Amino acid sequence: MSDLTKIILAEQDIPHQYQNINFYLQKFLGELPPPPLHPVTREPVGPADLAPLFPMELIKQEVSLEQYIPIPEPVREMYKTYRSTPLIRARNLEKVLDTPAKIYYKYEGASPSGSHKFNTALAQVYYNQQEGVTELTTETGAGQWGSALSIACQMMGIKCTVYMVKVSAEQKPYRKYLIEMFGAKLIKSPSDTTNAGRTALALDANHLGSLGIAISEAVEVAFGNPQVKYALGSVLNHVLLHQTIIGQEVIKQMEIAGVTPDIVIGCHGGGSNFAGIAFPYVAENLEKGKKVRCIAVEPASCPSLTEGKYEYDIGDSIGMTPLMKMYTLGHDFVPPGIHAGGLRYHGASPLVSFLLNKNLIEARAVEQLSTFEAGIQFAQTEGIIPAPESTHAIRAAIDEALVAREEGREKVILFNLSGHGHFDMQAYADYMGGKLK
Amino acid sequence: MSDLTKIILAEQDIPHQYQNINFYLQKFLGELPPPPLHPVTREPVGPADLAPLFPMELIKQEVSLEQYIPIPEPVREMYKTYRSTPLIRARNLEKVLDTPAKIYYKYEGASPSGSHKFNTALAQVYYNQQEGVTELTTETGAGQWGSALSIACQMMGIKCTVYMVKVSAEQKPYRKYLIEMFGAKLIKSPSDTTNAGRTALALDANHLGSLGIAISEAVEVAFGNPQVKYALGSVLNHVLLHQTIIGQEVIKQMEIAGVTPDIVIGCHGGGSNFAGIAFPYVAENLEKGKKVRCIAVEPASCPSLTEGKYEYDIGDSIGMTPLMKMYTLGHDFVPPGIHAGGLRYHGASPLVSFLLNKNLIEARAVEQLSTFEAGIQFAQTEGIIPAPESTHAIRAAIDEALVAREEGREKVILFNLSGHGHFDMQAYADYMGGKLK
Repeated sequence: MSDLTKIILAEQDIPHQYQNINFYLQKFLGELPPPPLHPVTREPVGPADLAPLFPMELIKQEVSLEQYIPIPEPVREMYKTYRSTPLIRARNLEKVLDTPAKIYYKYEGASPSGSHKFNTALAQVYYNQQEGVTELTTETGAGQWGSALSIACQMMGIKCTVYMVKVSAEQKPYRKYLIEMFGAKLIKSPSDTTNAGRTALALDANHLGSLGIAISEAVEVAFGNPQVKYALGSVLNHVLLHQTIIGQEVIKQMEIAGVTPDIVIGCHGGGSNFAGIAFPYVAENLEKGKKVRCIAVEPASCPSLTEGKYEYDIGDSIGMTPLMKMYTLGHDFVPPGIHAGGLRYHGASPLVSFLLNKNLIEARAVEQLSTFEAGIQFAQTEGIIPAPESTHAIRAAIDEALVAREEGREKVILFNLSGHGHFDMQAYADYMGGKLK
Repeated sequence: MSDLTKIILAEQDIPHQYQNINFYLQKFLGELPPPPLHPVTREPVGPADLAPLFPMELIKQEVSLEQYIPIPEPVREMYKTYRSTPLIRARNLEKVLDTPAKIYYKYEGASPSGSHKFNTALAQVYYNQQEGVTELTTETGAGQWGSALSIACQMMGIKCTVYMVKVSAEQKPYRKYLIEMFGAKLIKSPSDTTNAGRTALALDANHLGSLGIAISEAVEVAFGNPQVKYALGSVLNHVLLHQTIIGQEVIKQMEIAGVTPDIVIGCHGGGSNFAGIAFPYVAENLEKGKKVRCIAVEPASCPSLTEGKYEYDIGDSIGMTPLMKMYTLGHDFVPPGIHAGGLRYHGASPLVSFLLNKNLIEARAVEQLSTFEAGIQFAQTEGIIPAPESTHAIRAAIDEALVAREEGREKVILFNLSGHGHFDMQAYADYMGGKLK
């Protein structure tokens, strides 16, 4: 085994392609996730249904069965400014836990926007720009996605409008400044700029907003203007596809480290960061008969994977999006205001849901207080302040390391540190002040 | 020339030693900076004078004439978690500036505490711990240094007390939370815990605090307790010495890039980040007769290098520190409340001052508004939000790139991006809102 602490790939080893899990499902399982259905006709949606929202290249990726999809050279050029992200051995954490386990983490917080979201933002903006789109709309909850898309748009000269859940914009003014600094137009949702927003405000003039309503607003704007398209930061196949550069890098980095993970862990909201690190391992499991355990970790207060039903549901709150077969708590489920805002989604991605349903991955729910405890233990030993979302993965990694200690087994545990928490210090202050439950 | 965008060194190429500029001054110039003087006797201070404040190893480094000082292996182990920091070619910025210049930046914001300060924090905590010190005190203004020292202390199991300038603690609550999260005791200065603090409060019960008073408080605590020592984040020789790992890395990285810088730029407050990137180049200039221009960039509102006098002055506000020969605006100079709090110091390090006085480096002052303009242009093109301090270096780099455009010359410009601005978003919001002058 190598004793390297931090492993970074040479520029030529940054992935040249996205890896498509559907290829492996088709080939080795002979079965694919059920297709999305039109919210009115309940027929499978076709390219024409999605064309008002997405550029054709992304629609093709959504249904592709190719094993690999080449990363466009201009996108790969931009990846080079921050990738490969480091794979780091958490030696100090191991020592404090007194565990025989080796703990590795992939640090996606090293991206310009501070999370893995930038990986797909660059790709999505590029494909839109290539097809003549001049403006993108999106929604953001915690702000990670809105930040990522606004930076990517600014760098490639496309306009960007971000519908930010009102309560988040007010709780996290720094995120709001950040998005505006990157030149995006930020609109608090619900707003009076769309029918969806006005409807919500008519019901409650002081509405705090929700991710579902913000999605409806952003989608409505795109539907109304052919120059404007919509971008989503998780859930859909093409978004998860772009994130597979994480896992592809990790597989090479773990080879350099000279170890194979027994367990791969990612936090889970819509599914993109979990998919990013886990799908390339699931592909290896399918192709090579390996048995790497992949665990998606979600908040106990929003337990779509562990307590939701596997059924067709809409992705927003009012049915402007297709029906997707997924583990869902119901589209009218309103999760409590936990601090891991990026994990407060009523459903899960169809791909992650399908893999779970087929027992190709595992799911686990953890309590908020225990995630902050894990986050602070990690920060104090490894020096990086994790995003509240990422602390869910840390919690599970520490739990597995403690099991390894009890069992006296030298397990190799790998997790995705999806982002830093520099804009979430209020959440930590609330935790330290005993204000969370 | 290589076309790599981002260059990171292999683990074995992370420096094994700190590089001592005094060796080169002695050997090639035959002259050293004048020694610090005792504030009462005005005799050169000896080890016994400094022993209450610093461990003996750091006192030795302060006066060492060795060319290199080995980095202790446990410190180098911790450097490995985040070093080498990347050297990045600012291709997108070059394109927007339409300049023939090549612009490179060294990104020290990649450290756990988000700035170069962590480099010396780890070293200082280690040497203190080796000599049985159980607690460190320090002061912090903008919070970069307090964050760095608190993390380093937490990781090595030493107690830490941070006197934070009161107005900064209140303007930057996130920095305060961060320092507390890393287990340090944070005391707003002036406080009632020291004579220096009580004296200030007696004069003005609502005193906003200053760096000078906070230093006096931290120093007083160390003087009063043999188990407690004091740590300083800039100005002194040993602090600048530790930062030379930045420049040593850069020289190797620029070799890999296949270019030699014409100009090396760092912002300047106390001198440590400028010294970190520039001293190894100054050493090369002296040793090999090279002519790399090294430019220290300071705020026009606190222009110690460009408008101060080169004379002996005290380092704090009331004379608890030695007199140092430096460019100073006078120890009672109170700089305006600009947002680059880390550059609001009345003096400059004796080493940087000496080099400037000998014309071995250059200095330049820039206006606050122009630094924010540069910072936002950088963020929008390169995707990284710089600390307000670092924007001073960016301003000068952009100005040099624009000169290169006028001259049609393919200059190579290198600057130190000393830290990220994730905890300084209020400053950017104020700038964007037209509230700064």
